[in-house]
Amino acid sequence: MTRTIRAGVVGGSGYTGLELLRILLRHPQVAVSAVTSRAELGQAVADLHPSLRGHCALDFIDPEDVRLRDCDVVFFATPNGTAMRQVPALLAAGVRVIDLAADFRLQDAAEWQRWYGEAHACPELLSEAVYGLVEHRRADVQKARLVANPGCYPTAVQLGFLPLIESGLVDTDDLIADAKSGVSGAGRHLRVGSLYAEAADSLTAYGVSGHRHLPEIAQGLARMAGRAVGLVFVPHLTPMIRGIHATLYARFTAAASQDDVQALYAERYADEPFVDVLPAGRCPETRSVRGCNICRIAVTPAPGGKRVVVLSVIDNLVKGAAGQAVQNMNVMFDLPETAGLDQIALVP
Amino acid sequence: MTRTIRAGVVGGSGYTGLELLRILLRHPQVAVSAVTSRAELGQAVADLHPSLRGHCALDFIDPEDVRLRDCDVVFFATPNGTAMRQVPALLAAGVRVIDLAADFRLQDAAEWQRWYGEAHACPELLSEAVYGLVEHRRADVQKARLVANPGCYPTAVQLGFLPLIESGLVDTDDLIADAKSGVSGAGRHLRVGSLYAEAADSLTAYGVSGHRHLPEIAQGLARMAGRAVGLVFVPHLTPMIRGIHATLYARFTAAASQDDVQALYAERYADEPFVDVLPAGRCPETRSVRGCNICRIAVTPAPGGKRVVVLSVIDNLVKGAAGQAVQNMNVMFDLPETAGLDQIALVP
Amino acid sequence: MTRTIRAGVVGGSGYTGLELLRILLRHPQVAVSAVTSRAELGQAVADLHPSLRGHCALDFIDPEDVRLRDCDVVFFATPNGTAMRQVPALLAAGVRVIDLAADFRLQDAAEWQRWYGEAHACPELLSEAVYGLVEHRRADVQKARLVANPGCYPTAVQLGFLPLIESGLVDTDDLIADAKSGVSGAGRHLRVGSLYAEAADSLTAYGVSGHRHLPEIAQGLARMAGRAVGLVFVPHLTPMIRGIHATLYARFTAAASQDDVQALYAERYADEPFVDVLPAGRCPETRSVRGCNICRIAVTPAPGGKRVVVLSVIDNLVKGAAGQAVQNMNVMFDLPETAGLDQIALVP
Amino acid sequence: MTRTIRAGVVGGSGYTGLELLRILLRHPQVAVSAVTSRAELGQAVADLHPSLRGHCALDFIDPEDVRLRDCDVVFFATPNGTAMRQVPALLAAGVRVIDLAADFRLQDAAEWQRWYGEAHACPELLSEAVYGLVEHRRADVQKARLVANPGCYPTAVQLGFLPLIESGLVDTDDLIADAKSGVSGAGRHLRVGSLYAEAADSLTAYGVSGHRHLPEIAQGLARMAGRAVGLVFVPHLTPMIRGIHATLYARFTAAASQDDVQALYAERYADEPFVDVLPAGRCPETRSVRGCNICRIAVTPAPGGKRVVVLSVIDNLVKGAAGQAVQNMNVMFDLPETAGLDQIALVP
Repeated sequence: MTRTIRAGVVGGSGYTGLELLRILLRHPQVAVSAVTSRAELGQAVADLHPSLRGHCALDFIDPEDVRLRDCDVVFFATPNGTAMRQVPALLAAGVRVIDLAADFRLQDAAEWQRWYGEAHACPELLSEAVYGLVEHRRADVQKARLVANPGCYPTAVQLGFLPLIESGLVDTDDLIADAKSGVSGAGRHLRVGSLYAEAADSLTAYGVSGHRHLPEIAQGLARMAGRAVGLVFVPHLTPMIRGIHATLYARFTAAASQDDVQALYAERYADEPFVDVLPAGRCPETRSVRGCNICRIAVTPAPGGKRVVVLSVIDNLVKGAAGQAVQNMNVMFDLPETAGLDQIALVP
Repeated sequence: MTRTIRAGVVGGSGYTGLELLRILLRHPQVAVSAVTSRAELGQAVADLHPSLRGHCALDFIDPEDVRLRDCDVVFFATPNGTAMRQVPALLAAGVRVIDLAADFRLQDAAEWQRWYGEAHACPELLSEAVYGLVEHRRADVQKARLVANPGCYPTAVQLGFLPLIESGLVDTDDLIADAKSGVSGAGRHLRVGSLYAEAADSLTAYGVSGHRHLPEIAQGLARMAGRAVGLVFVPHLTPMIRGIHATLYARFTAAASQDDVQALYAERYADEPFVDVLPAGRCPETRSVRGCNICRIAVTPAPGGKRVVVLSVIDNLVKGAAGQAVQNMNVMFDLPETAGLDQIALVP
Repeated sequence: MTRTIRAGVVGGSGYTGLELLRILLRHPQVAVSAVTSRAELGQAVADLHPSLRGHCALDFIDPEDVRLRDCDVVFFATPNGTAMRQVPALLAAGVRVIDLAADFRLQDAAEWQRWYGEAHACPELLSEAVYGLVEHRRADVQKARLVANPGCYPTAVQLGFLPLIESGLVDTDDLIADAKSGVSGAGRHLRVGSLYAEAADSLTAYGVSGHRHLPEIAQGLARMAGRAVGLVFVPHLTPMIRGIHATLYARFTAAASQDDVQALYAERYADEPFVDVLPAGRCPETRSVRGCNICRIAVTPAPGGKRVVVLSVIDNLVKGAAGQAVQNMNVMFDLPETAGLDQIALVP
Repeated sequence: MTRTIRAGVVGGSGYTGLELLRILLRHPQVAVSAVTSRAELGQAVADLHPSLRGHCALDFIDPEDVRLRDCDVVFFATPNGTAMRQVPALLAAGVRVIDLAADFRLQDAAEWQRWYGEAHACPELLSEAVYGLVEHRRADVQKARLVANPGCYPTAVQLGFLPLIESGLVDTDDLIADAKSGVSGAGRHLRVGSLYAEAADSLTAYGVSGHRHLPEIAQGLARMAGRAVGLVFVPHLTPMIRGIHATLYARFTAAASQDDVQALYAERYADEPFVDVLPAGRCPETRSVRGCNICRIAVTPAPGGKRVVVLSVIDNLVKGAAGQAVQNMNVMFDLPETAGLDQIALVP
């Protein structure tokens, strides 16, 4: 009775592609039927990724291969600007699509062009694409043909701010997100700054004057608030493989105690399988979500009581990419939302 | 028809205890019914280990608690010298026991006392205890009441040498094992050398003049060889959380090519679900087994042809501890050997 | 003509003690004449710290040893609450003192007791003690008998905010300091959270509801502002050995461009040998100050223009502890301020 | 009276180039007069390397720039195969040369071609070039026009074996070197394997079937032994920025106690400023030489007494590259051998 979803992965050589495979290959209702990579064409997937030896017998195929059209769902784990060239044809063939890159995250094509440096290839799809932050838009995701999987920073920041913004408890003109990411967030591309001897035992901010995730986060928060928001966003590169820690600062519009904010978060996320609100006084460690699809959150008024501090952690490759993509797939195909996503974090 | 095994974990506050819980809580045929910790008595297990939030509702109980006797199997994830005081009573109550510490690994009580600094509490059980290197002694494990789970270094070294020794292809008087371990191998105990600021970005050998795993390895290799062996064993502490890499050197007794040794290993391990022999020319990375129960091995004659080099990697907390313990349990209870142990390694 | 300063180090077994020795033993005008450690009494200093082999022939002596009174200056690299019991006698003997712990940092004895949990042992010295942030209080340091060396977080945060606050360009009621520290900041003490397998590959905030450095920073900023300030301070533990990265957020009271803030910082720090203001558009990496006494700073208006972001990095053990202490000594003894402090950072 | 040596650095953008600058810029008798980089031509050196801000006012010049010919000494910190094309002209201009790459390390041009894949450009210089392992060939270095600076692995391995081989105490047909290196050893080149997310928290062997340092080590050991040697060499990549740990195994030709080997090493290295023999029972940590030019060694008979184990650690960028190059320069120019090389290791 349980049907099997045929899934394809476009861009299987990078970290989000590998993470998708790690999850999908153990998913009880999925069969991975196609994995593409232009660079590794013809090679066995498990040769490039030895951790998949014994779990995956596929070879990399070309992204133009027709076998993709036989899939029920295709995931794009490609660089920005790739999915938008292939998605229309797949949709036309009846395939549902989840893009893990940024191609369908911004609703405004001009804004997209400003941040990504080229004209959008299928702007007509931007309004149809559903921004796949399930906790905010579950009903829309369910019906979607095309899901824009949220970015890693945006996931941690938006889930952290969501209850405060929905409740009107904070001044949405004055939001600050100080975010720290592990190095895998930069992908498997060759960049000097991603070298071990550059990134280890060091920490640096970057993109202070403007990062591509800023408009994505601002757009998402504005949708929650019902109006434009004021946001300062500073990302940092930290010597971890995986993990994002977002430290969020907002100003109360009315006095609120620890109990107030604790109750607000507990209630908002009571039925969410992938958001865990910590008891008052605890701080989440990024490792506590290593390898699993959880967003773990703590909230506390700052000493003085004028501001609230939210701590929000995710695994950038799971809840911030591949895991959230599978969560979206589960919702789209009416599977149990946690199917294939019930791993316990790898600690230590 | 599938029965559920009731499992207890004595010593649930350390790393091997936590890793046992990570595996057992997702095992399809196990119910964890008791977790003990003298130090954390009464605390919720998931309070100490936030990665288990939502997966484990138990509180830590006393190791003397009678609930342990209702278990089908009890795992000891305790410091050396603890299990031997509790095991006789549990066995008498009909509980089967798997000890992850060293209490039942050496067959000679005097040798045990020499390395562990106290008299053995139940030397009469040493001969009954089965050394649980499943790949070497599967039939014995199947019938065992009491299994001594192999140490982390011994697992990597013995699985690496096994085919060479069984085949008589190398001089067993002249074996060298240069082994490198991640820091979690030292446990969650407070030791200056285990501090981040001591162990990070550095590497050191230790125990050169004698390490407790030396007699354990020598005993195991001797059993394979049918006679005493000559072994030099040098362990190293390396800045990784998990992982063991054993580099093994042996002298050929007869000429052997890459094809010869490749075939030897491929055949010996053809039916082993948890040993993966790499193709010629590949070297295993420890991360390729991070979080999974695989021992990944490469073998190659050294330039010159007189010596053979074996590279053997495991996750010290999985195949080197908790995973191997669950593998032993599966064999003891006639479950599929891979039940609960089919995770894919977490890479990157 | 050049005289030699006789220096003593109380508490030579920890990280700041070792770092003091690394610097003082190569200082052209210092002779280290006494190093104490109760725990290591009688042991050769270079036995505990092999990196000092060949550079230090001293043995650890008792902190009560009279040889300390023959020193020109004594550094306390001890836990909080130790120096205050010994300092009065040393001052009475004519020895000048630099305390690297917190005993003399807060001017209010009641406040001190609230944060450090015991009554202050010599509250009468609190008003005499000079808070040794040289860039702010050089003239006072010059004449001081007793210097309270600033904490690591407070150094990075105060040097980062200083020009903005002195200039009146920001609202001092709404300052935010999001600070990230390496693990050596927690010292060589045995704490579970400082273990490699706990701290590696993870990141967490802590002390959100109140950290001991909060009153110290608030006191310092208030002195710069001439009035009490409003500050939210969130420290984070990050997987680095050394390094602090403070990300500071403030709200402009008047419009200011990149050029404006750039000029402000360049001018304020033009004559400071240990503060380096980066050109616009660059972000400082903590590794760029690894092992040297520099505080490297970048300043930029956030997109939107309402807020300014300051990035300030130091080596917590050098400019945040031992190096700044030696800088204070240089100033106190009329030596060139950079004497013994001209190392180039160790990169990579 | 003290003259100043004008030094040039060809290849100033990589790690060994940067490390040379770190040392030379603080060397009391050196003025760095030229730094080249084809890729960074015209850029300020301190823009590429922010750790040099305030210490270096030079811009990168072209490697063909005539200013190199005005130097007293030129260091090549270039990829293999570069120096050999420029060295003859520099020597003809009276400049002395120290090559940190492999161009002049092998004495046999055919062997060089076999390992480096192209014909040697000036084979006539191979016999003149002095292999700059000062501890072995100080007198030759003193007179050399052209020094081949030893590789990082070869330095640690050769200094570790030297006393044993010179004394005839071990069988030189059966030497094993198991060596572990930090990632900076691979340089600043873009390679997937050098990425943080690939190299962190993992360990792997490589080059088991033949590494370029094998013939270099074998040639050096043969020169010590007076005959060809048998050597197995297995290098490993480990998650450290800097550091090499060589674990060496040899078979005694005659019985020798701990005291015997301890005395042998102590005497052989008694007058060497950069070799530190540890007391019996201690193991060297790589961090104990981080940033300094020391090779720290321990030697001990293995349990059983048939084999001896040597542990030898260096900083691959200092004693394994730039520091050793400056040591060679000091010897060549009759400066004190330790000039500019008296830093204390950065610990922790």
